[in-house]
Amino acid sequence: MVKIAVMGFGVVGSGVVDVIKKNAESIRRKAGKSIIVKHILDIREFPESLERHLLTKNVDDIMNDDEVSIVVEVMGGVEPAYAFTKRALLAGKHVVTSNKELVAAHGAELLAIAKEKNINYFFEASVGGGIPIIRPLNQCLAANEIAEINGILNGTTNYILTQMIRKGQSFEDALQDAQEKGYAERNPAADVEGHDACRKIAILSALSFGKHVDSEKIHTEGITKISLEDVEYAEEMGSVIKLIAVSKKLGDKVFARVSPMIIPREHPLAGVEDVFNAILVKGDAIGDVMFYGRGAGKFPTASAVVADVIDIVKNIDRNNRIIWSKNDENLLADIKETMASYFVRVKADDKTAVYNSVNKIFGDCSFITIENSKTQDEVAFVTPEHKEAYLQEAVARIKKLSCVHAICSIIRVEKG
Amino acid sequence: MVKIAVMGFGVVGSGVVDVIKKNAESIRRKAGKSIIVKHILDIREFPESLERHLLTKNVDDIMNDDEVSIVVEVMGGVEPAYAFTKRALLAGKHVVTSNKELVAAHGAELLAIAKEKNINYFFEASVGGGIPIIRPLNQCLAANEIAEINGILNGTTNYILTQMIRKGQSFEDALQDAQEKGYAERNPAADVEGHDACRKIAILSALSFGKHVDSEKIHTEGITKISLEDVEYAEEMGSVIKLIAVSKKLGDKVFARVSPMIIPREHPLAGVEDVFNAILVKGDAIGDVMFYGRGAGKFPTASAVVADVIDIVKNIDRNNRIIWSKNDENLLADIKETMASYFVRVKADDKTAVYNSVNKIFGDCSFITIENSKTQDEVAFVTPEHKEAYLQEAVARIKKLSCVHAICSIIRVEKG
Repeated sequence: MVKIAVMGFGVVGSGVVDVIKKNAESIRRKAGKSIIVKHILDIREFPESLERHLLTKNVDDIMNDDEVSIVVEVMGGVEPAYAFTKRALLAGKHVVTSNKELVAAHGAELLAIAKEKNINYFFEASVGGGIPIIRPLNQCLAANEIAEINGILNGTTNYILTQMIRKGQSFEDALQDAQEKGYAERNPAADVEGHDACRKIAILSALSFGKHVDSEKIHTEGITKISLEDVEYAEEMGSVIKLIAVSKKLGDKVFARVSPMIIPREHPLAGVEDVFNAILVKGDAIGDVMFYGRGAGKFPTASAVVADVIDIVKNIDRNNRIIWSKNDENLLADIKETMASYFVRVKADDKTAVYNSVNKIFGDCSFITIENSKTQDEVAFVTPEHKEAYLQEAVARIKKLSCVHAICSIIRVEKG
Repeated sequence: MVKIAVMGFGVVGSGVVDVIKKNAESIRRKAGKSIIVKHILDIREFPESLERHLLTKNVDDIMNDDEVSIVVEVMGGVEPAYAFTKRALLAGKHVVTSNKELVAAHGAELLAIAKEKNINYFFEASVGGGIPIIRPLNQCLAANEIAEINGILNGTTNYILTQMIRKGQSFEDALQDAQEKGYAERNPAADVEGHDACRKIAILSALSFGKHVDSEKIHTEGITKISLEDVEYAEEMGSVIKLIAVSKKLGDKVFARVSPMIIPREHPLAGVEDVFNAILVKGDAIGDVMFYGRGAGKFPTASAVVADVIDIVKNIDRNNRIIWSKNDENLLADIKETMASYFVRVKADDKTAVYNSVNKIFGDCSFITIENSKTQDEVAFVTPEHKEAYLQEAVARIKKLSCVHAICSIIRVEKG
């Protein structure tokens, strides 16, 4: 029998306790031992909970209990989760987490402590919720050099974009809808501004390339500026708009970015709708492989946490060699030096003048027209591929043209 | 340093040797030790191969070499692979295989020997080629009770169906095309008759439900009878035809089947094209999760084999508790007792008579008409859901109707 503690009795924490009880028999068969929750840490009261006898507000009850060999940290946020996790690891307790913020910020250090102590710090649930991605990347694709990862890593923004595309809802209406359904927080910034996806791609990058990637330095754009007109132009192009997180080896640097992108309907990520997430991995031997499922939610996330716990029970005496180095230099490639193609929409009266100037400045562009009274005074086009530095300078130039009244949108385009 | 032997120097075997050499440094980092190929077993000569000094025709060179702790079996077929694998396991050598035929037939026994000897018999590459599925099912979804698996498990048939759907090629032309591209064998029966998919779903069923499932008793239909008219009718229905392998818990039985199915375009498997495979798994906690990638080919398959080898090197002293029991009773549910809906096409002159009879016999059907000169003398319809026993009997009845000249097609329908 293995005794564990759960820190944080919110949505995921209560899901973890439920799954361990509900599937106790099959878990015992797979792990080889029964798994019992001995303590639950939370500062709140849960007088109605069936587990209230396990609750404590004092983290020492967990840290000082030698019977507890595995701690599940599902509190979220960097502090006090960081302090508690470090203390647990230093006390020789394995830690399993769903806390992407903490893994992105301090993963390198926590993994090093785990290795030193010959225990594990597992975080399958931190990326893609229930979707198996950390273990497949680390184990199943271990024979591959990972060349590139593209992912839809945030369910909230994918739900909002799906509502805009499928139902013609505005961003604001779709966000409110998502909040009413419980898919978005009351303060939605972490999701809609792309920060959540950014932390996840930082974790996947570190895991794939073996070095810490500073999530705060990853170029990150959210979806708040995406309009229904953009969605319609994308449709006219046979494409859809998705919030795409990308990470790619670029010489000895890593190119990582989170931004809305216009991707062709045939792209494997284009069909990923609603709150679903998907991660497309390109390895040198395997080619493209994709993992798809629910990227959040009580039971999907709990499922990933409990799978990590089972894996630890099966290998309680050894470290699993997941590690990335804590490097001080900035591993990230300068985004200005990377290639991209832009979709640009501008307000203009003299369209012919715009066509000519745009073709002169960007090189031959594809112009797109849609039947929509709101866009009659617009010119929309897709540029050829250039370095971002060049594209940004070119945008600054067209902004100054007398025939261009305003720039409405700039969205990167993935060409089929 | 860990020394391994490779049995079979065909496409996959040479891929394994290549990947181990090419990615030696990152494999050493992940495994914690270097991995060296010491012997390659094959009865053929490879005078041009860089590895010719490693070749042997005598399996004793491997079995009697105490330095070899892991054997890769990529020979295919049941014999002599079965005898060699058993001998290697009994000699305390871990075995990694891509041989679905052997795993489907003797997996239970070979896993039991591995457990007894505290070593491993790994077979990630046997299902889905390079797609991680065995390890995710066994580890990442370990907290779940698996409710259902649906998969496109054969790349050859998926390529042929994609050509029929996208390019309007006939089955025969698409098969020839697949053979020219090296996607289909000269004798394509194992693929196009569904036997390959059947072995794979037998393995996934055994793994998910913990008991041996006899692949020879799984109801299996291939795609040889699918015509371009069927493809067009499916399109009219907003659907596509795919060869779907399904496995589902049904009380204390397992329902497994391989057959062409008409599935709606919105189905997650509908967009899986060309030689790609995908496996959709439903777990009680995680909901739907899908794994997608290249289901065959030299390097994708080698990637999965080498990942298994790395995992063994990291855990050389322990069994991974993958096991299913070898039961004598037949675990499979009688397909006649399972529910289905049929798409049926019949030749007829008096269509009104057919409409009336069909509605009377099956209950209210949906009739489908397409603009195609070849189908002007046909009536096509989709039946309500019934037990297969009832549907088969009903088909026998309409076959005898004087207004029905012939039955052209019967294909199961997945209603969205």
